[in-house]
Amino acid sequence: MHVGRSYRPIEFALWSRGSILFMVLVSLCAIGAYSIPSIAGFSVPWPIIVVLGTTVSLMAGFKNSQVLARSSEALQAFAQISATSRMLSRFCCDFTDEPTKRALVYRHIAWMTALRFCLRRPMPWESMGRKSNAAFRKRYRVIEDTTSLSDELTALLGHDEAAKILKSGMLAAPLQLLNQQGHQINLLFRDAGLAPQVYTELLKLLRDLHDQQARCDRIKNSPYPRQYAIVSTMFVAIFCTLLPFGAVPVFAEMSRLGGVWGVISIWLTIPFSALLGWMYMSLDQVGESTSNPFEGGANDVPISQICRELEIELRSAMGELDLPKPLQPRNGIAT
Amino acid sequence: MHVGRSYRPIEFALWSRGSILFMVLVSLCAIGAYSIPSIAGFSVPWPIIVVLGTTVSLMAGFKNSQVLARSSEALQAFAQISATSRMLSRFCCDFTDEPTKRALVYRHIAWMTALRFCLRRPMPWESMGRKSNAAFRKRYRVIEDTTSLSDELTALLGHDEAAKILKSGMLAAPLQLLNQQGHQINLLFRDAGLAPQVYTELLKLLRDLHDQQARCDRIKNSPYPRQYAIVSTMFVAIFCTLLPFGAVPVFAEMSRLGGVWGVISIWLTIPFSALLGWMYMSLDQVGESTSNPFEGGANDVPISQICRELEIELRSAMGELDLPKPLQPRNGIAT
Amino acid sequence: MHVGRSYRPIEFALWSRGSILFMVLVSLCAIGAYSIPSIAGFSVPWPIIVVLGTTVSLMAGFKNSQVLARSSEALQAFAQISATSRMLSRFCCDFTDEPTKRALVYRHIAWMTALRFCLRRPMPWESMGRKSNAAFRKRYRVIEDTTSLSDELTALLGHDEAAKILKSGMLAAPLQLLNQQGHQINLLFRDAGLAPQVYTELLKLLRDLHDQQARCDRIKNSPYPRQYAIVSTMFVAIFCTLLPFGAVPVFAEMSRLGGVWGVISIWLTIPFSALLGWMYMSLDQVGESTSNPFEGGANDVPISQICRELEIELRSAMGELDLPKPLQPRNGIAT
Amino acid sequence: MHVGRSYRPIEFALWSRGSILFMVLVSLCAIGAYSIPSIAGFSVPWPIIVVLGTTVSLMAGFKNSQVLARSSEALQAFAQISATSRMLSRFCCDFTDEPTKRALVYRHIAWMTALRFCLRRPMPWESMGRKSNAAFRKRYRVIEDTTSLSDELTALLGHDEAAKILKSGMLAAPLQLLNQQGHQINLLFRDAGLAPQVYTELLKLLRDLHDQQARCDRIKNSPYPRQYAIVSTMFVAIFCTLLPFGAVPVFAEMSRLGGVWGVISIWLTIPFSALLGWMYMSLDQVGESTSNPFEGGANDVPISQICRELEIELRSAMGELDLPKPLQPRNGIAT
Amino acid sequence: MHVGRSYRPIEFALWSRGSILFMVLVSLCAIGAYSIPSIAGFSVPWPIIVVLGTTVSLMAGFKNSQVLARSSEALQAFAQISATSRMLSRFCCDFTDEPTKRALVYRHIAWMTALRFCLRRPMPWESMGRKSNAAFRKRYRVIEDTTSLSDELTALLGHDEAAKILKSGMLAAPLQLLNQQGHQINLLFRDAGLAPQVYTELLKLLRDLHDQQARCDRIKNSPYPRQYAIVSTMFVAIFCTLLPFGAVPVFAEMSRLGGVWGVISIWLTIPFSALLGWMYMSLDQVGESTSNPFEGGANDVPISQICRELEIELRSAMGELDLPKPLQPRNGIAT
Repeated sequence: MHVGRSYRPIEFALWSRGSILFMVLVSLCAIGAYSIPSIAGFSVPWPIIVVLGTTVSLMAGFKNSQVLARSSEALQAFAQISATSRMLSRFCCDFTDEPTKRALVYRHIAWMTALRFCLRRPMPWESMGRKSNAAFRKRYRVIEDTTSLSDELTALLGHDEAAKILKSGMLAAPLQLLNQQGHQINLLFRDAGLAPQVYTELLKLLRDLHDQQARCDRIKNSPYPRQYAIVSTMFVAIFCTLLPFGAVPVFAEMSRLGGVWGVISIWLTIPFSALLGWMYMSLDQVGESTSNPFEGGANDVPISQICRELEIELRSAMGELDLPKPLQPRNGIAT
Repeated sequence: MHVGRSYRPIEFALWSRGSILFMVLVSLCAIGAYSIPSIAGFSVPWPIIVVLGTTVSLMAGFKNSQVLARSSEALQAFAQISATSRMLSRFCCDFTDEPTKRALVYRHIAWMTALRFCLRRPMPWESMGRKSNAAFRKRYRVIEDTTSLSDELTALLGHDEAAKILKSGMLAAPLQLLNQQGHQINLLFRDAGLAPQVYTELLKLLRDLHDQQARCDRIKNSPYPRQYAIVSTMFVAIFCTLLPFGAVPVFAEMSRLGGVWGVISIWLTIPFSALLGWMYMSLDQVGESTSNPFEGGANDVPISQICRELEIELRSAMGELDLPKPLQPRNGIAT
Repeated sequence: MHVGRSYRPIEFALWSRGSILFMVLVSLCAIGAYSIPSIAGFSVPWPIIVVLGTTVSLMAGFKNSQVLARSSEALQAFAQISATSRMLSRFCCDFTDEPTKRALVYRHIAWMTALRFCLRRPMPWESMGRKSNAAFRKRYRVIEDTTSLSDELTALLGHDEAAKILKSGMLAAPLQLLNQQGHQINLLFRDAGLAPQVYTELLKLLRDLHDQQARCDRIKNSPYPRQYAIVSTMFVAIFCTLLPFGAVPVFAEMSRLGGVWGVISIWLTIPFSALLGWMYMSLDQVGESTSNPFEGGANDVPISQICRELEIELRSAMGELDLPKPLQPRNGIAT
Repeated sequence: MHVGRSYRPIEFALWSRGSILFMVLVSLCAIGAYSIPSIAGFSVPWPIIVVLGTTVSLMAGFKNSQVLARSSEALQAFAQISATSRMLSRFCCDFTDEPTKRALVYRHIAWMTALRFCLRRPMPWESMGRKSNAAFRKRYRVIEDTTSLSDELTALLGHDEAAKILKSGMLAAPLQLLNQQGHQINLLFRDAGLAPQVYTELLKLLRDLHDQQARCDRIKNSPYPRQYAIVSTMFVAIFCTLLPFGAVPVFAEMSRLGGVWGVISIWLTIPFSALLGWMYMSLDQVGESTSNPFEGGANDVPISQICRELEIELRSAMGELDLPKPLQPRNGIAT
Repeated sequence: MHVGRSYRPIEFALWSRGSILFMVLVSLCAIGAYSIPSIAGFSVPWPIIVVLGTTVSLMAGFKNSQVLARSSEALQAFAQISATSRMLSRFCCDFTDEPTKRALVYRHIAWMTALRFCLRRPMPWESMGRKSNAAFRKRYRVIEDTTSLSDELTALLGHDEAAKILKSGMLAAPLQLLNQQGHQINLLFRDAGLAPQVYTELLKLLRDLHDQQARCDRIKNSPYPRQYAIVSTMFVAIFCTLLPFGAVPVFAEMSRLGGVWGVISIWLTIPFSALLGWMYMSLDQVGESTSNPFEGGANDVPISQICRELEIELRSAMGELDLPKPLQPRNGIAT
């Protein structure tokens, strides 16, 4: 997530330079088609552009609402996890003995860690692999790129338990940890005489963690519907391809002004088409890069940072002093 | 649900080739009406097309928001079922004896199975019967097409109980299973001394399953309102029919450029009308094929896959080793 | 609720034939105003039509979103009632003795019956009285038109209790039944030793029924805001009245093509205006007829059918064999 | 809230006659500016009107969605209060002795009364003071205009308690009553042996009343954001001011038809501008008058009526026979 | 939050005078580009403006919906905090002894204070630093500008506890207070024999405070997505820059009317472009200044005022007489 004042226009232009290039090429074709003697005069009537433009705008609005909703929901899930983690830590400290407390809190941190790694795994529809995104990713740091789940779990749970958890694969790890958490809480109630009211509260928190995990999984596992994505992309592509062909005669007509315009007016098609086409394609690209809030992009939910802060809070609440450092945004990008 | 990178444009075009054909035919009529001597010159004024185009775009936006909401809600229901199933399994393992646990967990799996089959049954308004969808369905696999509820229930519950459940018909099966689940939980509390706190939690989970089932049934049993569906389809049909009649004079005028355009300009009506009409009709068709999230289409909620994963989780949590295999997407389509 | 494949266009056209007639008449006036010698040439400039058209489309979108939300909420309320009824029936069967169980379940069915009749009563703003709707209503069956609340309550509760309930009027009946339900549950806890956990659960269900009733009452008692309804209707009316006056010169101009067009072109105003005007008026009419989900229209929530199905479920869960028949949709309309 | 069939167009036109007058005056200016010899020909190009028109429509849609959401939320709050009041009354009747029951129920009615008076107080941004609204208010009756909180509270609570409640001002009254309600419930549990389950349920109801009060206060105390209100009003004002200047040349051009049009065509600017401008201004005015659902306007939530009905229900549930009369809508307006 | 009748247009114009200046400058350039002999005639075709205008309107609608949702959610969080605080105070008064009550209530007020200060801290993306906002801020008063958290906490908690809380920084203060609150409640239950039902209720309230804090933090820490902010700003900037270039020929054409218009018509470009451009830029600026509801702007949620009112309520409920004064809006702005 970008947490600076604003993207700089130049930053933005670099990120989306592909569309500018595309528009320049199409504009050249359009100028060619209009000027080459044997086929001179070809153009797309402007009214068609107007109708298409309205539709493209509406669809961009539709798409952006939908992907922003996905992104907001992801953010909400982690805000909820924060609130729940704090309550959990409080109960552990007040009602369980030292080793139980440590076990529960550390396993909770391990769960957040495992969840984080699962959510960062690449999915076929995600866009981190695209060149423009891969290049941009060098400007910031995704902590999961540089550490491994196995190392982090070992540090938190010890070697044996970590190995056991990881035996059935990374994807199953968060669930297994949550499951074990539930098991220990149940045992505390069944065998160790935990007060029923406290048990009930702990179950509520556990239920909430299960819900948030299911929510994150849902967002991670189901892409923004591909049928909408393709319709939307195709509309933008067709609109941007036709745009210069519609703009050419509009500018060419200016040549009747004579003078300097007689020569250059038709070439104005290029900057104008590039400007407009770039804007519409950016609108689509921005939507695309917002739709997967966990892949580690510049516009994603900063789950690493949130989890790190929670880890610090939870461990300092247990009186530990040797705490990890908070993750700082790099180049204004929190991850 | 398509879980690949994206639909390929060619795939998409094949799926919606009906609209292209329709547009080409209408365009030919439009060219005819414009060129046949005795009635030469007939066309629809373009401003009418502009007004209609705006309306059609807005209505497509409206329809797509609504059907996407249906689809998202279906997905949420199954995410919730996941979270609840896991909690249920945990309680069964920790607080009930071996046979009770087995009975409860297996009946829960049976419930998911029965629900799944009910949700896959065809409804009059669903679009799986249409030729384009039926053809596309061969590209992936809907597990419910190849097995029967009766077989699956027998495998899970034994022959006698399965027969009893199915006596009152497939449609009543999920409810009967849920009902029986409730009955056994009540008995555990009334007669077998289940701790009140645990009982309360189990009831919450049961309530949640009832809620999710009611939610799924609601989505399955009530179509996207037919009065909106027809208005929307008619608007698109009328717009696409008038479009070529509006485009003909716009392109015909280009013939005054002489040269090659004198001959072919009017024929450009065909590709342009086909392109535009295809886009708007696709927009509508995509909406149509998203509106019923359980019928087994390529854009549906992958309920078979979700249920299979839950089955694996639940059975492995009971320590079983002989587990079914997860369902893999075929051609990028998870079902 | 229409539960068939789709409305047939002809069905739809018959239902909305009023608007077609209106459009034809206005078109004739427009042709007259354009052609009558002394005032020849009167028309409304087309750009005005374009601006109005956009506004009308946006407002139709706004209205349809809002009324569809009303309709969906009504559907949700009844889905919730289904889930709650099933839970209630389970508790009654497992924790109360035979007569109590019968009393509670039958009173619950009586409550659904009374609610159903209350929701079907006509309200001043509802549109069932309009000729087009009244005619269409003959194509299906609203069960509340042919039975009376008093008869149905007597069958369920016996003559004495039914009379007592109905003494304070039909409108108060559902509340009285719910109130009595609450009273009996309270007594079971206070005097008959119902387990506290079960009592707590029963109260939750009761609370939920109160909530759903308040929700249904809210939808029934407050119309789609009349100030919006009139603004919207007036916009459509003005747009459709001006439309032919704007279309006339556009088509009249075609007469310069000579030949057959010299004579008939101006008359094309009629079919085109009728087509467009009919579409926009249908859009509004569809919104109007969706806005009151309980009045018994063809697009309403099928509350009679849902309640009948619940009655069958509840009574068969008590082991009864002499069950009423489910209500079948007639001509594709479930009520 | 208007609960009749529909506003009559004439009623509506009277209410919004201010805008018609405004439009006529501006149209005269526009005709003047176009015709006065020395500056003849001034007009605003129509394309500017088209762009503005689209924006104004979109903003009207935005505003109306937002204010309608406020209004619906207010309605929901009172529906929730209904459900909760009924549950509360049931518990009081079944678990407390006669004087306690009376005290609790009457204090609850007093709370609703105090809330009602608080919500009816005028706020700076509300529009009841405007001439058109003040005139329209004579057509119906707001009960709070004719009684005083002090009288009503005295009737319900006796002179002493009413005086004590009102000592700290009307605004604090509802909270004080709710607070005292909580106090008595707590005492019942602490000292009088109320069953824990019943206590828990009563607290839930109390919590819900606190929530609904906070919700109503939120809606009452925070206007529809003024920054949006002014932007929206300014857009409409500018659009409507420019409209006749854009329409003048369009109609003036008709004068070339000669005959009767040579003389009158330019004057058509007045009715057409008035019609269109009136529609857009009405759209804005309707939004404005919906945005404050508690001020006592014709489109508000009928809180007096809802509270009166609840009072009747609650008192008759205690067996009282001398009940107040329900409030009837006057001229179709429920308040 | 502006709580007066309305912003005055002049107030509004002053606030947004930057855009007017910008538009005048661009208009001068446009007139120059159109008139300077050697390049005379340069202009942007109007159809391009129309397409852009529609898109800009739609995006402004999208942005304003999203930021208003942020603002409403912030308001809801504080409404919820109000309801919860009142319940909390009631329980403290009824079930704990004098010193415990005082400790809990004062720590709750301290929590609100600390939260308030945290939410007022500046973030990089907030717009309070901009000149137009800084100037406007002098018209009202943000209480957090004139006091310090350390002083206020000392007054509430005494010097020692305040120092302890502040040791780990202002940002951690609210959480630490909430955490300690939880600790004391747990101890009351574990050691001091608080009734289980009351304990359960207190935990619910605590959970709710944790949730609201997480909600406020989420809104504070995550800006309106910067990628949308920049796309939106760029669209408006490009539209407003092109607008005068499109308007110039439209007005210049009027010069053919001769007379006074021959001279001044082209200069009309300036007022018209300024008017239109100012409106669209204001629309964007209003969105920007609504998007951060806690920074202390004129359109923000009045958290200082809400917290002060709660403090007065809570302290007077404990019988204190020496209460702080409510915060009054200054120049119609509540903070």
